Amino acid sequence: RRIGIAEAVLCSGKTTEQAVAAAEAAFAAHGRCLMTRLSPEAFAALPEAFSSRLDYDPLSRTAVLGAWPEIHDQGSVAVATAGTADVAVALEAVRTLRFEGVASDLVTDVGVAGLWRLLSVRDRLADYPVVILVAGMEGALFSVAGGLLPGLLIAVPTSVGYGVTAAGKAALTSALGSCAPGVLTTNIDNGYGAACAALRALNAAAAIARLKSPETE
Amino acid sequence: RRIGIAEAVLCSGKTTEQAVAAAEAAFAAHGRCLMTRLSPEAFAALPEAFSSRLDYDPLSRTAVLGAWPEIHDQGSVAVATAGTADVAVALEAVRTLRFEGVASDLVTDVGVAGLWRLLSVRDRLADYPVVILVAGMEGALFSVAGGLLPGLLIAVPTSVGYGVTAAGKAALTSALGSCAPGVLTTNIDNGYGAACAALRALNAAAAIARLKSPETE
Amino acid sequence: RRIGIAEAVLCSGKTTEQAVAAAEAAFAAHGRCLMTRLSPEAFAALPEAFSSRLDYDPLSRTAVLGAWPEIHDQGSVAVATAGTADVAVALEAVRTLRFEGVASDLVTDVGVAGLWRLLSVRDRLADYPVVILVAGMEGALFSVAGGLLPGLLIAVPTSVGYGVTAAGKAALTSALGSCAPGVLTTNIDNGYGAACAALRALNAAAAIARLKSPETE
Amino acid sequence: RRIGIAEAVLCSGKTTEQAVAAAEAAFAAHGRCLMTRLSPEAFAALPEAFSSRLDYDPLSRTAVLGAWPEIHDQGSVAVATAGTADVAVALEAVRTLRFEGVASDLVTDVGVAGLWRLLSVRDRLADYPVVILVAGMEGALFSVAGGLLPGLLIAVPTSVGYGVTAAGKAALTSALGSCAPGVLTTNIDNGYGAACAALRALNAAAAIARLKSPETE
Amino acid sequence: RRIGIAEAVLCSGKTTEQAVAAAEAAFAAHGRCLMTRLSPEAFAALPEAFSSRLDYDPLSRTAVLGAWPEIHDQGSVAVATAGTADVAVALEAVRTLRFEGVASDLVTDVGVAGLWRLLSVRDRLADYPVVILVAGMEGALFSVAGGLLPGLLIAVPTSVGYGVTAAGKAALTSALGSCAPGVLTTNIDNGYGAACAALRALNAAAAIARLKSPETE
Amino acid sequence: RRIGIAEAVLCSGKTTEQAVAAAEAAFAAHGRCLMTRLSPEAFAALPEAFSSRLDYDPLSRTAVLGAWPEIHDQGSVAVATAGTADVAVALEAVRTLRFEGVASDLVTDVGVAGLWRLLSVRDRLADYPVVILVAGMEGALFSVAGGLLPGLLIAVPTSVGYGVTAAGKAALTSALGSCAPGVLTTNIDNGYGAACAALRALNAAAAIARLKSPETE
Amino acid sequence: RRIGIAEAVLCSGKTTEQAVAAAEAAFAAHGRCLMTRLSPEAFAALPEAFSSRLDYDPLSRTAVLGAWPEIHDQGSVAVATAGTADVAVALEAVRTLRFEGVASDLVTDVGVAGLWRLLSVRDRLADYPVVILVAGMEGALFSVAGGLLPGLLIAVPTSVGYGVTAAGKAALTSALGSCAPGVLTTNIDNGYGAACAALRALNAAAAIARLKSPETE
Amino acid sequence: RRIGIAEAVLCSGKTTEQAVAAAEAAFAAHGRCLMTRLSPEAFAALPEAFSSRLDYDPLSRTAVLGAWPEIHDQGSVAVATAGTADVAVALEAVRTLRFEGVASDLVTDVGVAGLWRLLSVRDRLADYPVVILVAGMEGALFSVAGGLLPGLLIAVPTSVGYGVTAAGKAALTSALGSCAPGVLTTNIDNGYGAACAALRALNAAAAIARLKSPETE
Ligand SMILES: Nc1ncnc2c1ncn2[C@@H]1O[C@H](COP(=O)(O)O)[C@@H](O)[C@H]1O
Ligand SMILES: Nc1ncnc2c1ncn2[C@@H]1O[C@H](COP(=O)(O)O)[C@@H](O)[C@H]1O
Ligand SMILES: Nc1ncnc2c1ncn2[C@@H]1O[C@H](COP(=O)(O)O)[C@@H](O)[C@H]1O
Ligand SMILES: Nc1ncnc2c1ncn2[C@@H]1O[C@H](COP(=O)(O)O)[C@@H](O)[C@H]1O
Ligand SMILES: [Mg+2]
Ligand SMILES: [Mg+2]
Ligand SMILES: [Mg+2]
Ligand SMILES: [Mg+2]
Ligand SMILES: [Mg+2]
Ligand SMILES: [Mg+2]
Ligand SMILES: [Mg+2]
Ligand SMILES: [Mg+2]
Repeated sequence: RRIGIAEAVLCSGKTTEQAVAAAEAAFAAHGRCLMTRLSPEAFAALPEAFSSRLDYDPLSRTAVLGAWPEIHDQGSVAVATAGTADVAVALEAVRTLRFEGVASDLVTDVGVAGLWRLLSVRDRLADYPVVILVAGMEGALFSVAGGLLPGLLIAVPTSVGYGVTAAGKAALTSALGSCAPGVLTTNIDNGYGAACAALRALNAAAAIARLKSPETE
Repeated sequence: RRIGIAEAVLCSGKTTEQAVAAAEAAFAAHGRCLMTRLSPEAFAALPEAFSSRLDYDPLSRTAVLGAWPEIHDQGSVAVATAGTADVAVALEAVRTLRFEGVASDLVTDVGVAGLWRLLSVRDRLADYPVVILVAGMEGALFSVAGGLLPGLLIAVPTSVGYGVTAAGKAALTSALGSCAPGVLTTNIDNGYGAACAALRALNAAAAIARLKSPETE
Repeated sequence: RRIGIAEAVLCSGKTTEQAVAAAEAAFAAHGRCLMTRLSPEAFAALPEAFSSRLDYDPLSRTAVLGAWPEIHDQGSVAVATAGTADVAVALEAVRTLRFEGVASDLVTDVGVAGLWRLLSVRDRLADYPVVILVAGMEGALFSVAGGLLPGLLIAVPTSVGYGVTAAGKAALTSALGSCAPGVLTTNIDNGYGAACAALRALNAAAAIARLKSPETE
Repeated sequence: RRIGIAEAVLCSGKTTEQAVAAAEAAFAAHGRCLMTRLSPEAFAALPEAFSSRLDYDPLSRTAVLGAWPEIHDQGSVAVATAGTADVAVALEAVRTLRFEGVASDLVTDVGVAGLWRLLSVRDRLADYPVVILVAGMEGALFSVAGGLLPGLLIAVPTSVGYGVTAAGKAALTSALGSCAPGVLTTNIDNGYGAACAALRALNAAAAIARLKSPETE
Repeated sequence: RRIGIAEAVLCSGKTTEQAVAAAEAAFAAHGRCLMTRLSPEAFAALPEAFSSRLDYDPLSRTAVLGAWPEIHDQGSVAVATAGTADVAVALEAVRTLRFEGVASDLVTDVGVAGLWRLLSVRDRLADYPVVILVAGMEGALFSVAGGLLPGLLIAVPTSVGYGVTAAGKAALTSALGSCAPGVLTTNIDNGYGAACAALRALNAAAAIARLKSPETE
Repeated sequence: RRIGIAEAVLCSGKTTEQAVAAAEAAFAAHGRCLMTRLSPEAFAALPEAFSSRLDYDPLSRTAVLGAWPEIHDQGSVAVATAGTADVAVALEAVRTLRFEGVASDLVTDVGVAGLWRLLSVRDRLADYPVVILVAGMEGALFSVAGGLLPGLLIAVPTSVGYGVTAAGKAALTSALGSCAPGVLTTNIDNGYGAACAALRALNAAAAIARLKSPETE
Repeated sequence: RRIGIAEAVLCSGKTTEQAVAAAEAAFAAHGRCLMTRLSPEAFAALPEAFSSRLDYDPLSRTAVLGAWPEIHDQGSVAVATAGTADVAVALEAVRTLRFEGVASDLVTDVGVAGLWRLLSVRDRLADYPVVILVAGMEGALFSVAGGLLPGLLIAVPTSVGYGVTAAGKAALTSALGSCAPGVLTTNIDNGYGAACAALRALNAAAAIARLKSPETE
Repeated sequence: RRIGIAEAVLCSGKTTEQAVAAAEAAFAAHGRCLMTRLSPEAFAALPEAFSSRLDYDPLSRTAVLGAWPEIHDQGSVAVATAGTADVAVALEAVRTLRFEGVASDLVTDVGVAGLWRLLSVRDRLADYPVVILVAGMEGALFSVAGGLLPGLLIAVPTSVGYGVTAAGKAALTSALGSCAPGVLTTNIDNGYGAACAALRALNAAAAIARLKSPETE
């Protein structure tokens, strides 16, 4: 039995030839393929015959080969960012979710330095079973949201910042060491991983629901 | 509105007086209280009139003041450890879950150096919607389980090890950088946080189930 | 010309003989002396003839030799802590300020995981020209307060925590990398330094006031 | 109530579109806007219709959209650098202060390797209520100035250096661990933050002055 | 007496002139020479008269000057990679072995996130006396292979990854801290060093064999 | 098929009960058991009925339960230490090898600060197919031996040292970054792992020898 | 030919037996022996017959076995400390120099926070050809002295401090990254090494003097 | 009184205008000027009227404005490198010494992996009162030379390497933690600083010589 998540092709670190071969192999096996960390430069270097078949988004650096699925109804996910520069990572999560048929609700620029911004979306976010939080610099958003929201919280620290926050380590330690109970974390800039974890959670919820109301299946 | 998780009293860093006061305040408000990171030395230093009211477990360093709740039926959680020395942290998670009325299934010593141990419990673990993985040293368990199990995976790196693995950083980076998609992580040795995240996931699943089959409530 | 701040005797790292000698020298010169980082063990090891002359507080590990000054009227300082375990460091600041004749207003346990606690003291804190913020773990308090309070903000990261927050580095990077504009930072656990900086600010304000309204002097 | 400091648009990490949109939004709301960390390359990539409206300084990488305010009389700030290469960061502070109507006195190249340079400006610097100290390499300037100057001292460690001083960590630890009492610190290269903190201090001084001499308002 | 391994010319860090001179000197002494870490840019900068004599492979960044030796019969080596991006480092090992007359068996993409891939080549790998394991990200392959394979295991952590796995440190600590007994490690990305160690092991085996059956020499 | 190395019980991190249970289980299965990192304090805390059955060595912190095997003739191993303080780690390797029936030749105090000491044992060490090198501080021994000895070299960095060499990281980076080709490394202080790797190498040599001279079996 | 510096016995990391054996061996060979890092606890654990022959100083943790030499006339050395807590390390240097017949001039408590203290001893220190500078915390003394003194400067960073300066890394990076030209550094707390380097310098000066005025020998 | 070392203009981090202004100012004051870390790109960006007056060496990235001095007779210095890639840093030292009238003897490629290379120059190096040792990677040269040479030893760790040795930290910790007594260290890649320290030592030797034989002056 599979774990229910389509593998993506991580393009950074691969040569053009390797990336195309991996994507074609996935496409051959599954009829579609998600490519991540495909920089604009790497996209431009692809053979035109291949790149013309991609739905490419330069901000999130993701591409989809093949058709997008229908959106299914097993729940949707909120994605909130602290700043504007965090949107690129958030979109990697949004597009990965969408690639698996899950809708998401993107809320940007609710960093805690202007607390009213977060408070004004609190109720909207509190309705989601799963919330992905994307923040760089010192990542204070994770703890504040952790105290305000009841859902499963997935922190994605980003490498947005400079000096001690330059490479995302400061936001990462804030997520890991959060004083709010039950905040979970992915690797720095890992929007893809956050989306996969959200999919795991939705799948788990569906499994529980099936157990509880067997007649509805 | 609360986030649905009772706060625990983290005893490390508090004086005896501070710890007792915090626990009594929580007990007064909620009728029960969970104390974590209460070392045997700190337990021994408590006033006898207070400590005699606690259900204390020295291995997990947790104590409960007041009655344990009934186990409710919103799903249970698997907790798996790589080694024997990781059991203490796993028990912190088990007892936190139990404090919130959630049963768990503890599987120990399934580290990947003896892969057959993990493979022999794979089906048992794969049935759980949420699996907490507890591993120290290099934390390879997180990635192997990540490829084998479909549920929501919560990695708890432990400080078990020496040299480069001494304080849990190596296991932590393995969890964060896992090549398996969708593994999430807590702070090092944070069994409590893993349990809180599992509770969030079970609550989210219950909320989704309520939305889907309103008649069953 | 002096910089207007009495030096304290930092006792950690000194032998008993060195600490006593330094304190007596300061006492001889100034009629009083502040000793910091004097642990209960170090206090107990002092000659009784010396220690009996001290006003010692074990929680803040500070002692005063000689008389406390009057409280003067050049402004007072707010000191806020995220958690209970941060109070020891906060008291080091409070007693250093008091040693220089400055009153302070201590507010404890306003960490951001329970945001309402901080919001309920916001107006009280906003009235102070200088606010010392004391927080460990991930130090999210610094950024949230930074967005709510107009005064000079002095962050003191504490070594309260474990795993990635164990030695105060995570709180420190949160303070330094705060997305709130103009938050300043001291070394980890440096309540003394925060008080000295607050004294510098109050002295500066007094100097500005003198320039503006010379007749009022 | 606001905290009295206009937010700036941090351009690093933003796409051209994001930066322009943020600046226009701030301009629409406040009639003027400060852009920071706008590199010459990013400036050149701006649409000409937008960039022609900016007062841009490539050394400090700051731009102002809209008119500069009058200089008000609530005190001015000294800014001192250890070396020539630190001037770029110092100018970010100077221009941020100026954007808020505060004059500053820039003193360059007073690093401690040539102690007479610092001693010759000591009296000039000692007259300022707030002094921003900008130094890279090992940042010894912070401690020496800390012993010589009575005002509020704001250290800005810079990333000037190589080897162990390459990214500003050495200067940062010197600022944080300074043996001089009451030195405060910002993030590495954060001239903007230092200016914001100085504004907080001047605002606090003004508030204290108002309390003391209410008739003068 | 020599240690039986021809030194290679490490080209990174050398000017073109230095690299050519070193290679020509080795060629003059031994009739052939291996150049490592010769990037495509550095290769392109070589004088044509020199580069035309090289057998250059851009993926592994290795070049051979002079003739390849015959393959001798003292055993061959397996080289296994976790991902596609690790192949470049693996090829550096393969070509170094081949330069010394040793054949190798390259198996790619057997990372543990898809455990069946590794299990399906287990028997093939278990027949080799020496196995070089090449993995980046979190390097979980090292421990799983360590529990499955009886041969001498040489881990080569690679710098493939991002965030906490960006520069190879995470894979390195996994190799060093492996819970599988007897896994040995080289520097990050050091395919050359792994090959040299494999050669040492094959030489040692040959020496032992000679001792045991002197008649066969 | 097993990997041919008996697992040891790592006692650090285990409670007394856990350690005894693990050792008895191994003893029941294999008739003997090796316990490692059993400190004198932990040994003293064992039940006398158990500890009296152990052959315990406090310097190496190893104990053997059950009989030592005969020494077999598949080759022996040299173990060399840089300093006296490294002998404890070296003995962990020696006793692990002995537990598996392999003899070793221990040479102590051949650190490179007195180069003649190493040169005087060069020929003795050069005769061994496998040499374990144990060194702390800056670990220069690894590179010098790497240039002098033809055998398989297994570096064990130790935590002997202070300041920058305090926890073994300096010796570890020297081993990993050695300019001598083909030096391999274990975790800091991992004498057990070095012995296991040596056993893998001897097993591999035996397998090769069997292939070459089938008649000799 | 020897390098002209007697080796000392570093006692930390050695068992009592190892330390005594090493010291007796040195005594047998040279008639005297210096023991370093011999803590009061380790001294107390020595056999009385041995320890009664030692001249032991608990502050510097050094002991001398055998007679002290005459002071010879090849120059003397200044040793200056920033604070009182640095004196222990300074005395390790002083006693090592004295063990080799070199006098020293110890100046304590001249840290830069009180610059006048250093300036008042400047001329005294400037007369020495070699000055050992001992400082912890942020180590600003190294740079200020580097700009004031013409002699050979040997910085010894100490582990005096807490927070970011806790283990001596901050003082070390200040010494290494000093903006004053030509400051050299030893390991943290390495007073012994500083003394050995000073001896090398005095020996070198004597050699140069011999070359210049051969008649004076 | 000056410290007897001409300051150089460190060009990295300076704009073209700043670098030229600093050099012209030094030239105006002293009649000549040394520029360091002037990269080929920075050199090419200089105004031709200025750069035509420079004696520029691209490998060491140093330039001299004005005339070179005579070589004086106060002793010369040996400079030894472990590898070819370390020569650039060594030449920075050689040219700084030459700028101050001191000759040097450059010996390259004596790294310890081929010990005979170092042993063959041992006597040549042992005759120098001061030896600058330049090595990257793991920096084992420092300890081996430390045991063989009696002179003042100045280690310059270089950033030559990759993986754990990438930025020079490994070589730096080897220099600082050397088991050979009395090795001193500069910052990574700081050939200029090593030369300045050598000048201090030669000046000190001259001062001692003057004291001893006053008639020879
Ligand atoms: N952006 C991403 N971040 C982290 N992991 C990814 C990302 N995209 C793909 N992956 C995972 O990386 C693996 C792809 O590795 P590869 O075989 O080298 O393409 C797959 O297992 C994916 O699940
Ligand atoms: N140079 C700077 N350094 C640090 N923070 C800055 C800087 N410039 C602007 N900021 C702050 O960063 C935030 C802007 O973030 P953003 O919304 O992404 O533009 C504001 O809160 C500013 O106060
Ligand atoms: N001293 C040691 N250092 C590293 N690993 C060890 C050591 N002793 C035993 N081991 C390994 O650690 C594992 C034992 O873990 P455990 O099951 O917790 O006893 C086994 O796989 C051993 O191979
Ligand atoms: N390559 C170099 N490495 C380290 N310090 C240098 C170097 N070149 C010049 N310096 C020192 O750096 C200072 C020059 O700083 P600046 O005033 O910025 O030119 C002078 O005090 C020189 O002693
Ligand atoms: Mg943020
Ligand atoms: Mg494990
Ligand atoms: Mg906090
Ligand atoms: Mg400086
Ligand atoms: Mg991998
Ligand atoms: Mg050693
Ligand atoms: Mg100091
Ligand atoms: Mg080297």
